[in-house]
Amino acid sequence: MKQTTYALLEDYMCNCMADSAHDKEHVYRVLYSALQIAREEEHVDYDVLIAACLLHDIGRREQFDNSALCHAQVGAEKAGHFLREHGFEEDFIQKVCHCIRTHRFRKATPPETVEAKILFDADKLDATGAIGVARTLMYKADMEEPLYRLLPDGSISDGTEDIGSSFFREYKFKLEKLYDRFYTHAGSRMAQSRRQIAAAYYEALYREVSDGYDQGRAALERCLEEWRA
Amino acid sequence: MKQTTYALLEDYMCNCMADSAHDKEHVYRVLYSALQIAREEEHVDYDVLIAACLLHDIGRREQFDNSALCHAQVGAEKAGHFLREHGFEEDFIQKVCHCIRTHRFRKATPPETVEAKILFDADKLDATGAIGVARTLMYKADMEEPLYRLLPDGSISDGTEDIGSSFFREYKFKLEKLYDRFYTHAGSRMAQSRRQIAAAYYEALYREVSDGYDQGRAALERCLEEWRA
Repeated sequence: MKQTTYALLEDYMCNCMADSAHDKEHVYRVLYSALQIAREEEHVDYDVLIAACLLHDIGRREQFDNSALCHAQVGAEKAGHFLREHGFEEDFIQKVCHCIRTHRFRKATPPETVEAKILFDADKLDATGAIGVARTLMYKADMEEPLYRLLPDGSISDGTEDIGSSFFREYKFKLEKLYDRFYTHAGSRMAQSRRQIAAAYYEALYREVSDGYDQGRAALERCLEEWRA
Repeated sequence: MKQTTYALLEDYMCNCMADSAHDKEHVYRVLYSALQIAREEEHVDYDVLIAACLLHDIGRREQFDNSALCHAQVGAEKAGHFLREHGFEEDFIQKVCHCIRTHRFRKATPPETVEAKILFDADKLDATGAIGVARTLMYKADMEEPLYRLLPDGSISDGTEDIGSSFFREYKFKLEKLYDRFYTHAGSRMAQSRRQIAAAYYEALYREVSDGYDQGRAALERCLEEWRA
């Protein structure tokens, strides 16, 4: 890719980014992971891959403002419009847009090309390990959602039974389940190497808060009874 | 403490809380930790301790809106005003306000009474281990501050050389240094038991992002050169 093309796409991306889990540093990490994964794949079109990585989350702000919108769909449309406006070839545009449209974890449309599979894996990699935990915690703060929820008996839920959203719920229903859903060997291997720290962190956090809650609530009850007498 | 007194203070606290690192769940964790620590201390006035724990961060919103204000000072003034208004004894009010005024980590005025030392330790405990990491990450998101900063050579700073604020800087300059600054034996012991997971998490996060950056930037440079030729 020409330096000037890279600068054009990078500049557009920087103007589109929204929340702290999907800021431009997320985009650089995805791009850098994608380039590492690509080294073990064949017939990779690096121009398509780099453009798709840079532009994959440019629809995030629209989804952030209106959760009915899908950022992958909006992003593909915005990317197509931008690339056409700047005179890119239609074949290139279609390939880039396919990657962006299919990079989303929860979507029914799976990635079909090698570049789309690499982008999918590189993006998912940023939700694994310590970085996945950090981004999820920061996103929860952006959304004003809590770390954990309480069960009806007043103890802390581990996330599996939460009705409302929380970090623990997101860990149990998304982060923990990511690791066996990679398309590429390199992506899968990199994800596995990060699995242990995320699990250890979740376990430690749950133990710290739930032990404190259980023992503290019992102690408080004794105090309130004693002094009430 | 009477149930009705507890409910009065709890209700006032819930109306005062501000950001996601200092929400009412932080207050409950501090209260519960304080009650655990208190079991190993002598001559603890539990009424003073419970009131001080519930009200210790009621000045946070004022500091959040105006960083020149100290939430410990503002909180002590608000607590004094509230308790006087509700007919509490002056001696009790003075003891509670001393705890609140001296609970801040960076302050020159150290805690002097046993209740103040317990509150100080219980509050600091919520900045140790996995919970300390989680709260700091969420606070960084609230303040729109980044996970890490880049060094002039384009690599990721580990926090020790950051000029601006970041999670890595906060870890290196505050979280990592907390563990030998506890007043009580129980507080110190509880903090030590949480030390390893915070260090392991920081190390893993730094390794994930800096390895990705170093290898990815080199790969990108090769791509841009190749395609530029």
